[in-house]
Amino acid sequence: MVQLDDLDRAILRILKEDARLTISEIADRLNRPESTIHFRIKKLQEKKVIQKYTIVLGEQFQPKALAVVYIQAETPIIEEFLDRYIQYLTKTLSMLPNVLVVAKSGRDGVLAIVGADSEEGLHKFVDDTIRTLPTLKRVEVFPIDKFIKGEGLAGVLVGV
Amino acid sequence: MVQLDDLDRAILRILKEDARLTISEIADRLNRPESTIHFRIKKLQEKKVIQKYTIVLGEQFQPKALAVVYIQAETPIIEEFLDRYIQYLTKTLSMLPNVLVVAKSGRDGVLAIVGADSEEGLHKFVDDTIRTLPTLKRVEVFPIDKFIKGEGLAGVLVGV
Repeated sequence: MVQLDDLDRAILRILKEDARLTISEIADRLNRPESTIHFRIKKLQEKKVIQKYTIVLGEQFQPKALAVVYIQAETPIIEEFLDRYIQYLTKTLSMLPNVLVVAKSGRDGVLAIVGADSEEGLHKFVDDTIRTLPTLKRVEVFPIDKFIKGEGLAGVLVGV
Repeated sequence: MVQLDDLDRAILRILKEDARLTISEIADRLNRPESTIHFRIKKLQEKKVIQKYTIVLGEQFQPKALAVVYIQAETPIIEEFLDRYIQYLTKTLSMLPNVLVVAKSGRDGVLAIVGADSEEGLHKFVDDTIRTLPTLKRVEVFPIDKFIKGEGLAGVLVGV
């Protein structure tokens, strides 16, 4: 477990906001020598505190409508088939470009974050592509109408 | 609306995977002149196709347990109070560091993605901090047990 001090955290917070800043710009902001910042960032990368540098795509490339969809599968008589069916479900959903997140949830559930160009498009997708999957027990759609926190989510996860 | 061509998309895909690459490295990979890559990236930034450069934090800084929590408020007799109450709910949740995402969902609902160090910690947080909020009608917790797609979510949203 890596221990971070205040300087590490300050560097990480700055990079989260703008990962394009140069070492010298970060050094200026934090009033520390460049060599210190350079060394710290190197360490943070080596220790995988910084896992990856990436871009957030702008609003126009983010889906206009988003929803969390919870899908619960019917438990089959032969219980071991459930795992396989959940695997099939998650794999099928993952391949769809407008499904941004897929996760297993409990033994018989799948969570997805689904995007579309409009609310109608979103409902059509859920009705046509998700609700028609075989042996589902429950499909619940929770629209994401307005982010109060975590707005970056869509811009990071959306494909190009 | 910005139109992207194949080269723009190729550049964006590369930057999504590693936003630290230099212009010259990207030019090499795509077998194009540096001047072209430079110009394209400048455009993509100006047009806000690239909204932001950021970092993904490593696994050790990501919560061990995550869940989507759906919270539905009781509709008060004076309906206009509902909006204010939802606003209070989303504001309260947003201030908590282990609540990574907060969004309005429908007229009377709030969606949150909540993190904790363990499953017990997560349930304790939901029981102690969320279920005790006044006038809730329904609180449903969907654990995120394993990402199949969109794993980057936690590493991007987690605070430092």
